[in-house]
Amino acid sequence: MRTRAAVALEAGKPLEVMEVNLDGPRAGEVLVEIKATGICHTDEFTLSGADPEGLFPAILGHEGAGVVLEVGPGVTSLQPGDHVIPLYTAECRECEYCLNPKTNLCQKVRATQGQGLMPDGSSRFSMLDGTPILHYMGCSTFANHTVVPEVSLAKVRKDAPFDKICYIGCGVTTGIGAVIYTAKVEIGSRAIVFGLGGIGLNVIQGLRLAGADQIVGVDINPGKVEMAKRFGMTDFVNPKEVSGDLVGHLVELTGGGADYTFDATGNVDVMRTALEACHKGWGESIIIGVAPAGAEISTRPFQLVTGRSWRGTAFGGARGRTDVPQIVDWYMDGKIEIDPMITHTLTLDNINEGFDLMHRGESIRSVVVY
Amino acid sequence: MRTRAAVALEAGKPLEVMEVNLDGPRAGEVLVEIKATGICHTDEFTLSGADPEGLFPAILGHEGAGVVLEVGPGVTSLQPGDHVIPLYTAECRECEYCLNPKTNLCQKVRATQGQGLMPDGSSRFSMLDGTPILHYMGCSTFANHTVVPEVSLAKVRKDAPFDKICYIGCGVTTGIGAVIYTAKVEIGSRAIVFGLGGIGLNVIQGLRLAGADQIVGVDINPGKVEMAKRFGMTDFVNPKEVSGDLVGHLVELTGGGADYTFDATGNVDVMRTALEACHKGWGESIIIGVAPAGAEISTRPFQLVTGRSWRGTAFGGARGRTDVPQIVDWYMDGKIEIDPMITHTLTLDNINEGFDLMHRGESIRSVVVY
Repeated sequence: MRTRAAVALEAGKPLEVMEVNLDGPRAGEVLVEIKATGICHTDEFTLSGADPEGLFPAILGHEGAGVVLEVGPGVTSLQPGDHVIPLYTAECRECEYCLNPKTNLCQKVRATQGQGLMPDGSSRFSMLDGTPILHYMGCSTFANHTVVPEVSLAKVRKDAPFDKICYIGCGVTTGIGAVIYTAKVEIGSRAIVFGLGGIGLNVIQGLRLAGADQIVGVDINPGKVEMAKRFGMTDFVNPKEVSGDLVGHLVELTGGGADYTFDATGNVDVMRTALEACHKGWGESIIIGVAPAGAEISTRPFQLVTGRSWRGTAFGGARGRTDVPQIVDWYMDGKIEIDPMITHTLTLDNINEGFDLMHRGESIRSVVVY
Repeated sequence: MRTRAAVALEAGKPLEVMEVNLDGPRAGEVLVEIKATGICHTDEFTLSGADPEGLFPAILGHEGAGVVLEVGPGVTSLQPGDHVIPLYTAECRECEYCLNPKTNLCQKVRATQGQGLMPDGSSRFSMLDGTPILHYMGCSTFANHTVVPEVSLAKVRKDAPFDKICYIGCGVTTGIGAVIYTAKVEIGSRAIVFGLGGIGLNVIQGLRLAGADQIVGVDINPGKVEMAKRFGMTDFVNPKEVSGDLVGHLVELTGGGADYTFDATGNVDVMRTALEACHKGWGESIIIGVAPAGAEISTRPFQLVTGRSWRGTAFGGARGRTDVPQIVDWYMDGKIEIDPMITHTLTLDNINEGFDLMHRGESIRSVVVY
């Protein structure tokens, strides 16, 4: 079949919207009509050329929602008409990783996904002249139709709006999951969130959902305060306005240091501050942000020997097929909010405006509706 | 009263064995006759002058065992005749730390202990001319008699030999505890231990006790192999004999990386190797060793984001009054071994030989018997 897609032809160039060929689903694969997709910093990271593992030409996008149109041989958990969210972290429920309760990093389709291919080692997308186009993160939601492995699709309720729940495909789950699945924050905890962008806001509402007593937001942009308060921030710290040591200030503000800190900036210096602002004895710092290639984190080992832990999270520690449908329920039940974070809605034809808005810092999330 | 002690008069000089004055126990304090004491690297670290927090003159030693001679007002949990092990990490069971199940770092006597003083801010030791001598780590086991806060004494069974269980006061508990209390290693785990000195050997027997399937020891000294095997090491790696990347070698040897790694070297480069040799998704690295002042650990945050955790441990995460008596039971029941690690027995008069043996790498543990 043919479908319309925004194609990343090469690094550093805008996406080009065009007709492309899409082969039907093979064994274990599913054809999905994408109804909406968010534009995430990770798409921008790859498109810019900064990602050393970025491959072109490719159809980017990994934060979508849509409807199953057709299933390939052997697919048993989905059928046409099901509503789904594609998962860049699969959940096969049978690999060594899925069977270990300590991780969500299913390896079933990992190797081929990293090469921009389906599990059988080939691509379903091609140019009209036959040139293959690579998949991206196993999702490629910047196409109106895409093919995704069955194990990379979360089946969700049908009454949930695509243009909101698509955000659960990455940002919402990454932020809330870091709190709920990775840190397992307890009621009454004190927490600090570094970076009040889309991920940081979701960490904040995850903390509110978990019953945290104190939720400190740290950002150098005071324009972020209003929205962060709406999502549950109780205290705001602008490092530019702190005279003296920021760690000392945060430790005092939290009565000895935070039980949990979250880095949503990707800045390795901030990651160090986040660790050191943890409470002696039990504070845990969770790295969410993606650092520039080659950047390293550092601290004195004394920080760890005296009881702080340094950890990280990918996709919020969520097991997509299991946890994403639950997060959709939380949204539909009003336990979490998504609507205020979707600041811009676009069409596929003006998808590049979404990247411009991101670069100018004007959007929290732009969503393309097909 | 008067007692004999090995006094650290100044940094970098041998200890001087002399008669000293010892005041009796005040409220909440206990007079203990020390029967045996180990000589630990931490004593050496302070005596050498490398410890920036070291204070002189002081009576060092923190790995002892002895008998209660007298209790001060208000002491309820101990009475004369009880056998005890002094604790450099107290357990008051009422401070914010003791009441948090995530930590063992009781803060009750922490501030004064760091100043070389009893909780009331004074010292019980003095020279015969009246010059005060400082306590050390709340223990000062290099004196035949010492005064220790009640909350810093573990009461142990009376049939356990002092010259062996004194080692439980630091090295044994630090190594075994890192496995049992901090890492909570599960049956069937694969683990790597860096550094096969006294702490490393105790990590190894802790892993055996916990039911680990694979226990890899890493050391540049092949002379450590025989003893490490005796304590449960299943594989030995000498980094000097590995051509190419040590991390890659260890990851392959453990079938994808270790579930748990332990640094018992204090070398920050080794600490990085220990983290990176952990299994993706769930591997945890525990720092036990004390690094030189100012040294820093580093890694790429990607290591954490893909599921490895970096943690530390002090006193093996043990709550001394609760856990140390249990470890004594394990020793008496034959679940752990201590005797082969006590390679030298000395008298107080030749205590400096213990430091010489340590410097020459000839001892695992030297014990002074009074």
